Amino acid sequence: MSNGIVVIALGGNAFIQKGQRGTIDEQWANVTRAMRQIADIIEKGYKVLLTHGNGPQVGNILEWMEALKDRIPPLPMDVAGAMTQGWIGYMIQQSLANELRKRGLNQNIVSVVNQVLVDGNDRAFRNPTKFVGPYYTEDEARKLMDEKGWDMKPDPRGGWRRVVASPSPIDNLEKNAIKTLLNNNFIVIASGGGGIPVVEEQGQIAGVEAVIDKDLAGELLASLVGADHFIILTDVEGAMINYGKRNMRILRRVTVDELERYYEEGHFPPGSMGPKVLAAIKFVRNGGKMAAIGHLYKALDLLEEKTGTIITR
Amino acid sequence: MSNGIVVIALGGNAFIQKGQRGTIDEQWANVTRAMRQIADIIEKGYKVLLTHGNGPQVGNILEWMEALKDRIPPLPMDVAGAMTQGWIGYMIQQSLANELRKRGLNQNIVSVVNQVLVDGNDRAFRNPTKFVGPYYTEDEARKLMDEKGWDMKPDPRGGWRRVVASPSPIDNLEKNAIKTLLNNNFIVIASGGGGIPVVEEQGQIAGVEAVIDKDLAGELLASLVGADHFIILTDVEGAMINYGKRNMRILRRVTVDELERYYEEGHFPPGSMGPKVLAAIKFVRNGGKMAAIGHLYKALDLLEEKTGTIITR
Repeated sequence: MSNGIVVIALGGNAFIQKGQRGTIDEQWANVTRAMRQIADIIEKGYKVLLTHGNGPQVGNILEWMEALKDRIPPLPMDVAGAMTQGWIGYMIQQSLANELRKRGLNQNIVSVVNQVLVDGNDRAFRNPTKFVGPYYTEDEARKLMDEKGWDMKPDPRGGWRRVVASPSPIDNLEKNAIKTLLNNNFIVIASGGGGIPVVEEQGQIAGVEAVIDKDLAGELLASLVGADHFIILTDVEGAMINYGKRNMRILRRVTVDELERYYEEGHFPPGSMGPKVLAAIKFVRNGGKMAAIGHLYKALDLLEEKTGTIITR
Repeated sequence: MSNGIVVIALGGNAFIQKGQRGTIDEQWANVTRAMRQIADIIEKGYKVLLTHGNGPQVGNILEWMEALKDRIPPLPMDVAGAMTQGWIGYMIQQSLANELRKRGLNQNIVSVVNQVLVDGNDRAFRNPTKFVGPYYTEDEARKLMDEKGWDMKPDPRGGWRRVVASPSPIDNLEKNAIKTLLNNNFIVIASGGGGIPVVEEQGQIAGVEAVIDKDLAGELLASLVGADHFIILTDVEGAMINYGKRNMRILRRVTVDELERYYEEGHFPPGSMGPKVLAAIKFVRNGGKMAAIGHLYKALDLLEEKTGTIITR
């Protein structure tokens, strides 16, 4: 009956699309549309484990907190990340259940609050690069750097912003719960926003102010649960080489060796396609059957290798 | 080995205490202290299922959203509730794990995002009584009533506030996942803030703007998982009768019949001890061995019937 475990990473366009303000009606419409694709995959007999990004949502929470910081003490990024797991997990859980109910399927779905371990000595902490939260003037930024010890840099989009590290995920702390749920035929939502980043110090766990790439955290989870397929859904048709040049082309079927060569040649931009390609490479290297990168609204076709970039051994 | 399943409902003082501003340091200190009690219970061999309130947290989120409503579209109460499940679930999950690690125990802990079903025709929707979110002037309030269709009333604490319904919980939509996790020896955190309130209409689930009482939702969950004990932790020593009168006294050991008589005589104020007493009555009536109401920092003594109000058949 089962076609194996597929881990699906949902990009930002599953929740808030470009040009939208992110009203609740827009969010429900986006999630509902995305979940039709996921339901198609479930209907084919795959065991599904979902993960998702949280960039715009955590951005909103940081802005909300900043606006009222004199009245309500703002909370750090680990807690903000946990909040987005509740927010987005709820929306996925409910809209996927509704789609399955329409089709007469009644598999149970559950989101877990999920911490992902990083190394406190990860090099990323020495060179924070991930822009987060509100935009400030240079004066405000310099004041915050003094007051809070934040790293702040000019954002190419204008203004100064806080930058945090994007360390590599090394373990998923709720992997046993996730495995137990999958083994008992639940559809699970986990590792949202790359997971809540935590470090271990003298046997104790503590949150850190960082953002783990959601595709790399998704890959770790996929490998930990022994998934067969790892599907990264985004707003483009697949990974491109020679981007912006006359010989630009989309990669259709590639071996992991081939893709790694392109990766090392610098074909994929660090902030966007880079981590997706790296996550796909890692998944296949770690024993996964197939990784794929493609468009959100072609998820089943992607899994069936009819579209997008398909990476195999 | 197992002493049975105990469902523990944590009150607000486990997270933000009276007089505190709710800084992150205060929150971690409060949760850490509360989790020592829970670890004592786990160490005695009980299977623990935790639930918690979310009043101040959801209040903060509603204030944050309101402050930036012209820039970031505010989200409804069901989503705000889901956010608090992530926030509080994370803090419990991490601090309880740290306390268990100190004791050399390594049971896994997991929070689930949890929807609780209510009846869209519940009488509570015709007479909303639960104050939520920011305070407004009467003029602002009247404008919001027109614009958004909110119910608003003068809050006895001053100013006008939104009121929402507090309907009765009728089902817990993630009960199967919670049971599976408990059966596999996980410590589970669920039904946070009374659960995310949802209704079912033509087979589809949808969030509603309401607040389910966390003790009543906790009772439902305790009964659904077949718990032996239901422990309601708060900031007083137990349920009092003749409150504020010369013959005021704390109830120590009561039968459910006795407690129901006091409840019907109006001894317990609706907003605070009333729902706790009602939840305890329901739990024992539904077949639970024992319910208890007492102080957060005496949780194990309460479970061992050495303190607080103990309710049995």
